[in-house]
Amino acid sequence: MKQPIVAILSVGDEVVTGVIVDANAAWLATQATRLGFRVRLCGAVGDERDAIADALRAAMRDAAVVLVTGGLGPTEDDLTREGLADALGVPLAHHPEAEAQIRAFYERLGRLMPATTMKQARVPTGCAVIPNAWGTAPGVAFRGLRVAPAGAPGEATDRRGETSGGCGDAPGDALCRVYLLPGVPIEMKSMFAATVLPELMALAGPRRTVSRVIRTIGMSEAALGEAIADLMNPARNPHVGINVSETIVTVRINATGDMVEAERLAETDAREIRRRLGAVVFGEGDTTLAAAVGDLLRAQRRSVATAESCTGGLVAKMLTDVPGASDYFLCGYVTYANQAKTAMLGVPAERIERDGAVSESVARAMAEECRRASGADFAISVTGVAGPGGGTADKPVGLVWFGLAGDGGTTVHRMTFGEHLTREQIRDRASKAALNLLRLRLLNPPQANTI
Amino acid sequence: MKQPIVAILSVGDEVVTGVIVDANAAWLATQATRLGFRVRLCGAVGDERDAIADALRAAMRDAAVVLVTGGLGPTEDDLTREGLADALGVPLAHHPEAEAQIRAFYERLGRLMPATTMKQARVPTGCAVIPNAWGTAPGVAFRGLRVAPAGAPGEATDRRGETSGGCGDAPGDALCRVYLLPGVPIEMKSMFAATVLPELMALAGPRRTVSRVIRTIGMSEAALGEAIADLMNPARNPHVGINVSETIVTVRINATGDMVEAERLAETDAREIRRRLGAVVFGEGDTTLAAAVGDLLRAQRRSVATAESCTGGLVAKMLTDVPGASDYFLCGYVTYANQAKTAMLGVPAERIERDGAVSESVARAMAEECRRASGADFAISVTGVAGPGGGTADKPVGLVWFGLAGDGGTTVHRMTFGEHLTREQIRDRASKAALNLLRLRLLNPPQANTI
Repeated sequence: MKQPIVAILSVGDEVVTGVIVDANAAWLATQATRLGFRVRLCGAVGDERDAIADALRAAMRDAAVVLVTGGLGPTEDDLTREGLADALGVPLAHHPEAEAQIRAFYERLGRLMPATTMKQARVPTGCAVIPNAWGTAPGVAFRGLRVAPAGAPGEATDRRGETSGGCGDAPGDALCRVYLLPGVPIEMKSMFAATVLPELMALAGPRRTVSRVIRTIGMSEAALGEAIADLMNPARNPHVGINVSETIVTVRINATGDMVEAERLAETDAREIRRRLGAVVFGEGDTTLAAAVGDLLRAQRRSVATAESCTGGLVAKMLTDVPGASDYFLCGYVTYANQAKTAMLGVPAERIERDGAVSESVARAMAEECRRASGADFAISVTGVAGPGGGTADKPVGLVWFGLAGDGGTTVHRMTFGEHLTREQIRDRASKAALNLLRLRLLNPPQANTI
Repeated sequence: MKQPIVAILSVGDEVVTGVIVDANAAWLATQATRLGFRVRLCGAVGDERDAIADALRAAMRDAAVVLVTGGLGPTEDDLTREGLADALGVPLAHHPEAEAQIRAFYERLGRLMPATTMKQARVPTGCAVIPNAWGTAPGVAFRGLRVAPAGAPGEATDRRGETSGGCGDAPGDALCRVYLLPGVPIEMKSMFAATVLPELMALAGPRRTVSRVIRTIGMSEAALGEAIADLMNPARNPHVGINVSETIVTVRINATGDMVEAERLAETDAREIRRRLGAVVFGEGDTTLAAAVGDLLRAQRRSVATAESCTGGLVAKMLTDVPGASDYFLCGYVTYANQAKTAMLGVPAERIERDGAVSESVARAMAEECRRASGADFAISVTGVAGPGGGTADKPVGLVWFGLAGDGGTTVHRMTFGEHLTREQIRDRASKAALNLLRLRLLNPPQANTI
C-alpha cells in the first residue's frame, strides 16, 4: 500500500521572515511520520490571503491530508480562514458552534470578550470547527473532495462526514482533509491530539512507525556512531539515527511494520543499543537528565542540595523542573558573589583570596559546607568561568570546577567547555555535567571505606 | 516599486519528517527580508527527485530569487542538482570547475578523495558553480529566464550574466536566479555571504527593510492589539505585527524604503508605540526581561537577592543569564523544602504550619529575611504551587505569592496562572512576574515615607 501523503503549511510573517524557527511543522511532521504517512511538502507562507490560498490549493492537489498552523487569531493579519475559503471557492460565514465555543471559553476565564474576537467565528462554508481547549481560536476542518487542477477554483464540493478509510493516493481517490490549527503550540498540540490524530489513525491503516529514543550523556556523537555503526545501515529496518542537542546525544530507532512487528523490532534494537552503550544511557523517550537523577535519588531514598556559582541556580532549576522533586531536593545556595560564598556557606574568605573562586579548594568547600548546612545526603557544587568576560590565561572561559560531597566522601572534578561556546551553552553543559556526576555516583557507590 | 519576491526551499527527509527543525530557512528569510525582498514562500521537500523538481518549478514561476539548501552531498539521496536539471529541462553534465574545486578542497585537507565525491561535479547544463570554503559540495547558480508555465519544461533559456538591476516583478520581467546551497549551516552561510549576498544586494537596489522589535510584559496580546490597532493596518508602511512567546508580547515594526527613509519610518512608529504602551515596554531587540532589570539595577547602583520556593532557582538563573550580573546579583536561596525556609531564612516553622508555605505571610517573611541575610538592597521571594500535583481547592495549581522587600518597604503580591498551564510554563511565568515586580519598583520608587 502506498503511504498517503501529508502536506504541512505554516502561516505567519514571523515564520517566512525568519523571526521564529518553525517548530510546529517539525512536530506535526513527526506525528504524521509515526503514523506511517509520507510528508511530501512542508511549506510556510506569510500573512497574505492570496499566498495562503495558493499554497493551500497546491497542497490539496497533492496530499490526502493538509495540516495548517497559524493565522487563526482575531487580528487583521490573521487570514488563514480567508485563504481556505478562497482555495475552496466558498464564502466565509458566521458559524454558530464556533461562536458558542468562543463565548464558553471567555466565560470559563471570567473575562470580558473583546468584540474583535468574533472574527474567529467566521469559517469557510461547509467546514466544521474543532474545539480549542486552551485558547479562543476554534480550529477548522474541511473534509471533502480535493480541489480541481489550478485555474479552476470553486469546484471543491462539500462532502463532509466522508468515509474515514482508504484515503490513499490512487488516482481515483480525490478525498482530502484540511485542518486549520492555531499557531500557539499548546493549543495546536492539544487540538491535534483530541481531534486530528484519531482521524489520521483511521486513515493510516495498520502500518505504523514505532520510535524509540535512547538518551545519553558523556560519549561523543562520533564515538557513539562507531559503537552502533552496523545498526545504522540505511537499508535496515529499524532505521537508526543519531542526533545531538545541547550536549545530549540521542539515538532514534524507527521501526516500521504492523504494530506488533514494529514494536518487536524496535525493542530488539533498543536492548542491543543499551547493552553496547552502558552507563552513558540515562533514559528513554522524553526523560530528562534531571528526571533520571531524581529517579535514582528517590529509589535510594537520598536527598540532594546544591551550591552554585557560575550556573547561578540552573542546577537547582533543572532538578526542580521535575514534578515531585520535593521528595529529594532540599535546597540550593546560589553563591554568585564571593562574599555570598563566605556568608552563606562559610567558605573562608582567605581561601577564595588565595586560590580564587574558581578552584579545586573552593569547589570542595562549597560542596562540603552545603552538605553540612543543608543536612542533605549529597551536595553538588559548581564554580567556573561562564564568560563571555572574566577569562584569564590560567582560568579561561569555560573552565569549571565541580564538587560532589556524599557519605562516600568528596570528589572534585575539573572540566573545560570550549571557549567557542556561548555563556548560555557553558552554563547548560556545566549544569548537566554536575547532574551527571551525581548520577554516576548513584549508579556506582564507592566502597564504604573510601573516605 | 514592488518588492522582489524570494522563495526558500529546504531539501531533505530529515526536514520533512521533523527530525530537525529547519533553522536554515529562517536564517535565509531573515537575510532576504533585511535586504528588502519579500519572502513569499518557504518550503521543504524530502529527498525525492520529482518533488524537488516540482517545488523548484513552482518557486521559479513566482519568485525572482530561489534559495535552496540541502541535497548537494555525494550520496544516493542527494538529488537537488538532479531536481534543478529536471525543472530547467536540461541534462546534468560534468563541470570541470566544480571538479577543480573539489580536488583542491581534498588537497587542502590532505585527505584521499572518495570516488563518489565526483557526483558533486555533475551540474545542470548552463549553470555556474559557487565555491564552498568549508566543505566538498560546490554550490550551483542558475541565472536566467524563469521557467515557462507548468507543463512546458525545457523552455528556460540559459542567459547567464544577465543584468543585475531591476529584477522586479513586472509581468515582462522574466529573470530568475536559483542558488543551490549546502545544508550544513556553516557552509551555507559562508557561501551565501561570499557569493549570493552581493548579487542580492545589487538586485535589491537601494530598498531596505528596517526592523524594530519592542518587547513588553503585563498587557495581553488582545489589549495591546487594540491599543495599536490603527498602526497594524496591513496597507501601512511600516508593517506592524504582534507576536507572543512565553508570556512576552512583542511588537515588530518592519519599515521599507531607502535606508534613511526606512530608519525614519521605523523610529517614528517605535516612538509612538512606546508612548502608547508606557511601562509595559521593557526593551527592544533581543533584550531579555532579566537584562532590562539588570540595567535598571546597575544604573541605580542597587543589588538584589532571591528567595525561591516553587521556581526552584529559575529567578536566579534568569538574572545570572546576563553577562556581568555580578554587578548587582548577590545570592539566591532556593528554599524548596519547608525545613529549608526555616533553616536557611529563619521563617518560623509555626508560621508555615499555620498559614501554609504558599501564603502572604511566608512570602513576606522570605523576602524580608532574604534581604536581611544577604544585605542586598532588594529581595524577591516566590512561593506557589507549580503543579501538576499539590493543588487544593484553597490553593490551586498556579497560585503564586510574591514578596518584594526594599528600602521603600515590603510589598506582597498574589497572582494566579491558569491551571491549564504546564509546570514549566507556570514556573517561567512566575519567574518573569517576579522580575517584572522588581522592574516596576525600580521605575516607580515609592515615597520615602512609605514603610
